[in-house]
Amino acid sequence: MQHCRTLLHAGVLITQDAQRRIIENGSLAIRQGMVVAVGTREALSAAWQAEQELDLGSMLVLPGLVNAHTHAAMTFLRGLADDMPLMDWLHQRIFPVEARLTPEIVRLGSLLGYAEMLRTGATACMDMYIFEEAVFEAARAAGLRCVGGEAVFAFPSAACAGPEAALKATRALAERCAGEERLSVAVNPHSVYTTTPEILTACRDLAEELGLPLHIHLSETREETELCLRKHGKRPVELCRDLGLLDLPCTLAHVVDVNEEELDMLARHKVVAAHNPSSNMKLGSGVAPLSSMLERGLVVGLGTDGPASNNQLNMFTEMGRAALLHKVAGHDPTLLPAARVLDMATLGGAAALHDARLGSLEPGKVADCVALDLASPNLQPLYNAVSQAVYAATGLETRMTMVGGEILYQDGRFSRFDYDALCREVSDLRSFALRAAGLAE
Amino acid sequence: MQHCRTLLHAGVLITQDAQRRIIENGSLAIRQGMVVAVGTREALSAAWQAEQELDLGSMLVLPGLVNAHTHAAMTFLRGLADDMPLMDWLHQRIFPVEARLTPEIVRLGSLLGYAEMLRTGATACMDMYIFEEAVFEAARAAGLRCVGGEAVFAFPSAACAGPEAALKATRALAERCAGEERLSVAVNPHSVYTTTPEILTACRDLAEELGLPLHIHLSETREETELCLRKHGKRPVELCRDLGLLDLPCTLAHVVDVNEEELDMLARHKVVAAHNPSSNMKLGSGVAPLSSMLERGLVVGLGTDGPASNNQLNMFTEMGRAALLHKVAGHDPTLLPAARVLDMATLGGAAALHDARLGSLEPGKVADCVALDLASPNLQPLYNAVSQAVYAATGLETRMTMVGGEILYQDGRFSRFDYDALCREVSDLRSFALRAAGLAE
Repeated sequence: MQHCRTLLHAGVLITQDAQRRIIENGSLAIRQGMVVAVGTREALSAAWQAEQELDLGSMLVLPGLVNAHTHAAMTFLRGLADDMPLMDWLHQRIFPVEARLTPEIVRLGSLLGYAEMLRTGATACMDMYIFEEAVFEAARAAGLRCVGGEAVFAFPSAACAGPEAALKATRALAERCAGEERLSVAVNPHSVYTTTPEILTACRDLAEELGLPLHIHLSETREETELCLRKHGKRPVELCRDLGLLDLPCTLAHVVDVNEEELDMLARHKVVAAHNPSSNMKLGSGVAPLSSMLERGLVVGLGTDGPASNNQLNMFTEMGRAALLHKVAGHDPTLLPAARVLDMATLGGAAALHDARLGSLEPGKVADCVALDLASPNLQPLYNAVSQAVYAATGLETRMTMVGGEILYQDGRFSRFDYDALCREVSDLRSFALRAAGLAE
Repeated sequence: MQHCRTLLHAGVLITQDAQRRIIENGSLAIRQGMVVAVGTREALSAAWQAEQELDLGSMLVLPGLVNAHTHAAMTFLRGLADDMPLMDWLHQRIFPVEARLTPEIVRLGSLLGYAEMLRTGATACMDMYIFEEAVFEAARAAGLRCVGGEAVFAFPSAACAGPEAALKATRALAERCAGEERLSVAVNPHSVYTTTPEILTACRDLAEELGLPLHIHLSETREETELCLRKHGKRPVELCRDLGLLDLPCTLAHVVDVNEEELDMLARHKVVAAHNPSSNMKLGSGVAPLSSMLERGLVVGLGTDGPASNNQLNMFTEMGRAALLHKVAGHDPTLLPAARVLDMATLGGAAALHDARLGSLEPGKVADCVALDLASPNLQPLYNAVSQAVYAATGLETRMTMVGGEILYQDGRFSRFDYDALCREVSDLRSFALRAAGLAE
């Protein structure tokens, strides 16, 4: 007998290993936060002695979903402004509120966002915002994994006087979270249209110096491309390539308005795209050429973007919309099958977060997993567990969310923080937000 | 003091009345299954004496959603076959199973579908399938409202030897459910491509004779239009118009491949379109020209279609996808705002079911409503109740579903049937379905 901390038993276990094994009555052996064995309940029970057993009955267990691009702090603005032209929405509603942000507001908004992620099966995310130290405080409070970093703009934010200050904050964040197993830092130039080539170069240099990945919004809209062409005589991907950004581990959010040449360029550089179907749909940005990306071997993760342009942080919602959007856009029901979508939300997310420990349940990977209640009417009957996760689940069937072997959410209870108190605190921010957005005196 | 059966108290009440009032601490007075008063809790508590009070705390109460087009029985096939070319999917998977259907299978599949609808906030649906008597049996068992009718094809189904038999079954169904308050019958020619002008005429005649509405799939794909042009020298809408179908109360499912002239034709005839965004997306059928429809004053309901092409029967999922699909298709974030989508799912559904008692909570309407738990992390904080319902809710926040003043679902329990027993029975159908679909020996 070998010894482990936890033996977890599932009705059905989606491993996402190289063979994409799905094991009925499957079990995980977990030691020191890592998966040490995967197999049938029978085999693992015979081979492993555990300090505790977690019997999830008939539930479906799958790797924790990875949200490849988000701004969780904006959750405190959910539903404040919808259905507006993009520029009005930004300038009248979002920017005026963001100009008055404080670390405490960012912490509360982020924690609510992470509560939603844990509640709907996500165990890790790539986050970009301001006051990112407060974002990390929320991530610690929630317990989920986060790759974050201070957003770098050419202009002042509520958090930083300018790009130098943002880079300094990024460096400080990287120092402070060194050695934290669930937190790591990326350098976050916001976009090509909110920075300059000089700032992008400084971001690249810092990333190179500290060995950090880069995370940037890229080619989100046609307007971005046109602006970039006017200003720099190049399309956004070309600009980033010429500045050497694509030579680093790089996560590119959106990648909607790209041509064939740019896609070839991206595929050659082994960067990762973070696809955000809900946001691209809600803002009317366009449809990312996902089939062309995947054909070229470009690795793609799936993200929710911020709740102000979604309005959910729910990776199950995102999987369903991704699967459906590309079928209708390509007039072909065979495009982006369920298994491919689940790959994006798990292994693609691991690539986007530049963390190879994530994305599947097999020895050597971290014990990040979620359990779905298959007894929910929308998950009955069960023919195909992957189809059920991608097409039929809403996310709220999640009964248990585990990160590194630790249960962070189970049956209505968050283990690390007081959810009801959080809701009261976030609710108290409403009058501030309404006033700042010009919606109340 | 006036007397009523129930006083229902909500944290927030979306009425969908002519003023689209949203009442904080709102209440409903219910008598004999009807809403008799709506107002603040304070006002109603002072004016009405109730046999029972139903205090839903801080929950959001809205009119029961109306599913304008579905084939609920197919729920027993959920996830059996996805991501296939349409014709392979139909001929290899769906038709072989449907050829071996029995009333009992149809009853079980429908009841599971209705369980999902009640669980996710729908209180009424427009259903089309075969063995519709068994569908009605399921609707009675679940308690939700259903407008159904035997599907009429030019060829035999497992239920009927041909169109005459299907029309006879429709007539018998109408006789048997006369006087049933929650069930009514429509004449259901399946489509122009699975019937003939003679059959369509016979359907129209029966509908006219019995005073029933018509329900037909129309202009779902470009292929349907091309086939119709080749066979009849007319586009589908024109064919139906010339046969007099559009002169009756008529619900047209899909209406995707239509031109401006056809839209004008439809608007002139006061028919109702049932929009099915998930199905149109998953099957790659195309994007219905919703903005053009609404501009012309065409009334539009929202439907899930069958679970084999969705794979959910969840009107909240459908609302979110509808709102997002048309924004990205039209490259405009202001298209189809949340309030318009909720109108489609409530008042539009009432029109699609030809039942003016549905769709809003006001005196004279039936007491069909649902309560959402706003404490769910994805519904926090609350700025705008309609935005929350359309963009943020998954449907599983539904804590209570009421039809005609009767609670049919509350906190995990269905009041009229044994859900666990149903799941076992549906699960037992899996080997039949796999064999019939050629997926098992």
